[in-house]
Amino acid sequence: MTFTIIGSGNVATHLSLALSQNGHSILQVYSRNFNNAQTLANKVAATAIKSLAEINPIVETIILAVSDDAVKVVLKELSFIHSHNPIIIHTSGTLPITVLSAIAKNYGVLYPLQTFSKNVGINFLNVPLCVEANNEKTQQALLQIANSISNLVYTINSHQRKALHIAAVFACNFTNYFYAIADNLLQQNQLSFDMLKPLINETANKIQINAPENVQTGPAKRNDKKVMEAHLSALSQQPNYQLLYRLISDEIVTKYKNQTDC
Amino acid sequence: MTFTIIGSGNVATHLSLALSQNGHSILQVYSRNFNNAQTLANKVAATAIKSLAEINPIVETIILAVSDDAVKVVLKELSFIHSHNPIIIHTSGTLPITVLSAIAKNYGVLYPLQTFSKNVGINFLNVPLCVEANNEKTQQALLQIANSISNLVYTINSHQRKALHIAAVFACNFTNYFYAIADNLLQQNQLSFDMLKPLINETANKIQINAPENVQTGPAKRNDKKVMEAHLSALSQQPNYQLLYRLISDEIVTKYKNQTDC
Repeated sequence: MTFTIIGSGNVATHLSLALSQNGHSILQVYSRNFNNAQTLANKVAATAIKSLAEINPIVETIILAVSDDAVKVVLKELSFIHSHNPIIIHTSGTLPITVLSAIAKNYGVLYPLQTFSKNVGINFLNVPLCVEANNEKTQQALLQIANSISNLVYTINSHQRKALHIAAVFACNFTNYFYAIADNLLQQNQLSFDMLKPLINETANKIQINAPENVQTGPAKRNDKKVMEAHLSALSQQPNYQLLYRLISDEIVTKYKNQTDC
Repeated sequence: MTFTIIGSGNVATHLSLALSQNGHSILQVYSRNFNNAQTLANKVAATAIKSLAEINPIVETIILAVSDDAVKVVLKELSFIHSHNPIIIHTSGTLPITVLSAIAKNYGVLYPLQTFSKNVGINFLNVPLCVEANNEKTQQALLQIANSISNLVYTINSHQRKALHIAAVFACNFTNYFYAIADNLLQQNQLSFDMLKPLINETANKIQINAPENVQTGPAKRNDKKVMEAHLSALSQQPNYQLLYRLISDEIVTKYKNQTDC
C-alpha cells in the first residue's frame, strides 16, 4: 500500500520504518520542519515535501502522526484532500475518530501503544496497535496494514482508546518520571542509578504474571509509619517530591489498610 | 555460618532461603506469629521459637528482618543478647546502623534492594545487597555473607541507604501502584491489562541503557495541552487519579518546557 506521512517525530519515524520494512511504500513525508521531513524521508526512501498541497493525489493512505494540537491545524489545510479520496488515519490516543469525518469518506485510527524514543530501536512486531475505522471496508484495510507490521492488533473504540492512553500515561510516562526522580535522589548521594536497575526490572517483570495490586510492596503497603515519616523528613528540601510521596503513600495506605502483612 | 532469623515476612523468607541454599545454617526462626515462624522454619530446616529468650546462645549472627516499627520493639526484648556476643544485623533501608549500638559489640546492616513477594520466586544472585558495619572485622564478616548469596554487593553508609530506599519507593512501590491505577482504568473500560505489558516492559528496558530523563515521552513531555485537558476531564469522577495526573504532568511540563520536541 502507498502512504504519505505527516509528522516526523517519534511515532512518525518508527511507524514509517515499520511500514517501509514490511513491503509498503512511503511516497512522501511532510513536517512543519522541512529538515526533519527530509531526515525521515531519507530513512524510508520517500520524498520530503514543503507543503501539504504537494501531496500526491494517487496516494492510498495518509497518516497524521503529529501532536493532537497539530492535528487540528493540519486538518484545516487538508480540506482539498476530499476529492482524492485516500484513507486518512490519525495515531492519537485521545482524539476521537470523528475529528476526521469532515475531511474524508474513509478514515480511521491506528494507535500504537508504545513509548518511542528517536534513538532507541524497537521491534515493531511487539507493539500493540489499536485500530478503529468509520466503516467496514476501511476497518479491513486498517487491520491489513496493522497485521502487516505487528503481531498485537486490537480493535477498540474511541472511548476505550482514551482510557487506554490515560492508563499508558500512568504506567509509562509517570513511571519513567519516577525513575528520573530516583536517579536524581541517587546522584545527590553519590550513588549510581545502576543499583536500582534490578529492582526496576523485577517490578516490571512481576506484573507480567500477577495483577499489580497483588504484588504491591513497600512502607505504605505495610503502613510502616516510622519509615514514611523518615522519608518525608528526608525530602523536606524537595517539596515537590515530598508532596508526591505523601499523596501516593496515603493512597496506598488507604487501599491496603484492612489487609494484614507481617 | 549460623543464623537466627527474626521475622517471617517477604525479606525474612527470601533472605533465609538464599542463606540456606548457599551453605549457611538457619538455626532458629522467631516471629510474633508462631505459625508464620513455623512455616518459614520448615522451608529452611530450622526450629521455630516462641520467645526471643529461646535464642540459642551459640548462634553467630542474628538477622532482624522485620518492619522498622517492630525493630524497636524487638531490640528492647533482646537486651540480654549482649553477653552472647553474636553479630546483630538489621535489613532496613531507613534505620541507621546506630539503632543496634546499645545491644551488640558487632553489628551492621544487610539491606536487600529488591521487591519481594512471598509467592514470586527470585534469583537472589541478582539482588543488590547493601552492607554497612560498625567495625572492620564485622564488615568483613558481612561482606563474606553478602558475597556468598549475591553477585551485587555494595558498601554504603546509613545516609546513602536512606536515600536509596526513598529512590526505591519511587522506582518500585509507586511505580507498581501506577500499574494498579492503569489496570483499574482498563477494567473500567472492558480492556485487558495484557495490552499494557509490552509498554511497561519497554519503559523498564529503556532505562537499562539510557538515563530516564533522556527517554521521557508523553503528553506532558510534549506540553500537549489538548491531550492533558482531555485526560483530566476524563478523570473527573476519580479525583485522586486526577490530582496525581495534574501534579505529575505539571512537574514534567516544567522540567522539559524549554526543550523542543517535534
